[in-house]
Amino acid sequence: RTLRIGLIPGDGIGREVIPAGRRVLESLPSSLNLNFSFVDLDAGFETFKKTGTALPDKTVDTLKKECDGALFGAVSSPSTSVAGYSSPIVALRKKLDLFANVRPVKTTVGSSNGKPIDLVIVRENTEDLYVKEERTVEGPNGKVAEAIKRISERASSRISTIAGEIALRRQNIRAAAPGVSTRSQPMVTITHKSNVLSQTDGLFRETARKALAAEKFSSVLVEEQIVDSMVYKLFRQPEYYDVIVAPNLYGDILSDGAAALVGSLGLVPSANVGDGFAIGEPCHGSAPDIEGKGVANPIATLRSVALMLEFLGEENAAAKIYTAVDANLDEGKFLSPDMGGKATTQQVLDDVLKRL
Amino acid sequence: RTLRIGLIPGDGIGREVIPAGRRVLESLPSSLNLNFSFVDLDAGFETFKKTGTALPDKTVDTLKKECDGALFGAVSSPSTSVAGYSSPIVALRKKLDLFANVRPVKTTVGSSNGKPIDLVIVRENTEDLYVKEERTVEGPNGKVAEAIKRISERASSRISTIAGEIALRRQNIRAAAPGVSTRSQPMVTITHKSNVLSQTDGLFRETARKALAAEKFSSVLVEEQIVDSMVYKLFRQPEYYDVIVAPNLYGDILSDGAAALVGSLGLVPSANVGDGFAIGEPCHGSAPDIEGKGVANPIATLRSVALMLEFLGEENAAAKIYTAVDANLDEGKFLSPDMGGKATTQQVLDDVLKRL
Ligand SMILES: CC(C)[C@H](C(=O)O)[C@@H](O)C(=O)O
Ligand SMILES: CC(C)[C@H](C(=O)O)[C@@H](O)C(=O)O
Repeated sequence: RTLRIGLIPGDGIGREVIPAGRRVLESLPSSLNLNFSFVDLDAGFETFKKTGTALPDKTVDTLKKECDGALFGAVSSPSTSVAGYSSPIVALRKKLDLFANVRPVKTTVGSSNGKPIDLVIVRENTEDLYVKEERTVEGPNGKVAEAIKRISERASSRISTIAGEIALRRQNIRAAAPGVSTRSQPMVTITHKSNVLSQTDGLFRETARKALAAEKFSSVLVEEQIVDSMVYKLFRQPEYYDVIVAPNLYGDILSDGAAALVGSLGLVPSANVGDGFAIGEPCHGSAPDIEGKGVANPIATLRSVALMLEFLGEENAAAKIYTAVDANLDEGKFLSPDMGGKATTQQVLDDVLKRL
Repeated sequence: RTLRIGLIPGDGIGREVIPAGRRVLESLPSSLNLNFSFVDLDAGFETFKKTGTALPDKTVDTLKKECDGALFGAVSSPSTSVAGYSSPIVALRKKLDLFANVRPVKTTVGSSNGKPIDLVIVRENTEDLYVKEERTVEGPNGKVAEAIKRISERASSRISTIAGEIALRRQNIRAAAPGVSTRSQPMVTITHKSNVLSQTDGLFRETARKALAAEKFSSVLVEEQIVDSMVYKLFRQPEYYDVIVAPNLYGDILSDGAAALVGSLGLVPSANVGDGFAIGEPCHGSAPDIEGKGVANPIATLRSVALMLEFLGEENAAAKIYTAVDANLDEGKFLSPDMGGKATTQQVLDDVLKRL
């Protein structure tokens, strides 16, 4: 099987980590019978400055027509609001209907400095406040701006269903490696703020409950947490959680919070998942402070490559990458500066590649 | 001076901690020349079940006409949405125009298990998604619900101004106790998500920048953080932060997050502050799991009493309570179960009272 992968480095360290993602795909063992072809695509603030648009039509068209998946680096936000600029990754998620943003956060044997954490945040990726329908009026006391938070039954249902499926898949993986985890039952925690937003978050909660009550999820324990107390619990007992499903904005916040628990945003991958398409995307930003120094941590990107492969049905290839990355972290010899090490992006990458 | 204080225990452990708040006021040394009278007021889910309203008009009227300040315990949320029920504390904040929710989070010498944290979250308290303007329509693919997020220049400006004032006041307190803190300059960090919400959060950011550029804040360092990265930073380097100002919902989430850093929500106070009026309110909820057992931690309430007094201009009385509470925590002999101790609410209270 040959997969065609769009490469969208974006801005800043996106340009340093996406090439590492390409290299890991090219270096997968030939026994997997997987081949890759690549196409370079533009997006980001630099692209905006050059062309007037942060997400050229050509990028979207090529992804739709030619590609099986893609890797997205990071984009810089302008430091003040710039007319006409808007985030290309948010637009891409909507244009390709990549309805789920999947963000696994886990400690490895070597990188845990507390209890082992192994959870995944499944974030709705197309609506909520990210519909970006805003308006401003000039009132007697100055400006008043409003934004729409939209929650639909359809999007809430499909995100909850994929969260349930991920919980079941994780349980299968645990069953295949007995003794590694002590979790006996898959669990999904629904996050919302329905005590204030009874209609919107109330709909999310109710729809999630309904979707997860399906026969196929009968082995899944379903719980819920109000978002503020979810953040509190996430920090107090992260080892308790398995799959957390949340509307877009809460998922955004929770995943950065969870990343803090494992030591560095530089470790946390994500995949933007739609029907038959996935974009791997490290959770970190464009990191202008370390741009161009060659010390960006490539781990989040390498894991995002694996996550993309998983959602494209290539679980064996994904497992190879995960195992190599975990071994790199467990040995701890080649760690980038964000992890307290001294290794360059290239050195971390080389260490992972030799373990494939 | 005699202050009249409304007591609104609400539900669950609210009924156990608010009496402790009353006792600490009654026990303040007579040298302070402060007297208190109290009026018991109803609100909460129990009240709703009995009377059909969670916030009786009488409660609001009495607060407005008779009281100088109030203490609010906690309210239970119904486990599924109940027609006609809506959170009384959210309504009270709006009806009394208590525009700022001030939530200091700090470690004491004894309770810190890492770096010392001493920050305060200043949360806008009247608008954002808390305007609760929602509607639901039945579409071809099921229900679609929408909520309004409203951000005004007026509310953003006054919350930023009070945040700046709090930063200056904290600097004065530090100057009076040299050597206790290493912070040399007051700082306010503006939190928003203007990279997605350019109009609403953009207005908050821009207005906050403008308000904090006022001459009187010239000694204040002003920074900003996108909310997701704020949560990350809060966990990675909490000791860095001084005053964090945020729109309503982000403030809600951040304050629970910050509470996790100091070990227990049972330690974190808040004050809902308006012009000449303040309601002290512990950050924890009604905690149905420990209700009626007499083991609720009263510290958050005792600190909320002090915070209320501070905003009513009684800083000396407030300082007495803070010092007594810190001494209780530092000694660590009478700690409630959430802090790993065995003391009852009454024992913690008695230990604090004897230190006044
Ligand atoms: C850059 C920003 C628009 C984006 C988001 O909010 O989704 C980022 O924070 C993320 O989590 O991918
Ligand atoms: C109970 C709830 C409505 C409330 C809020 O969201 O403001 C609570 O979480 C708080 O922080 O005081």
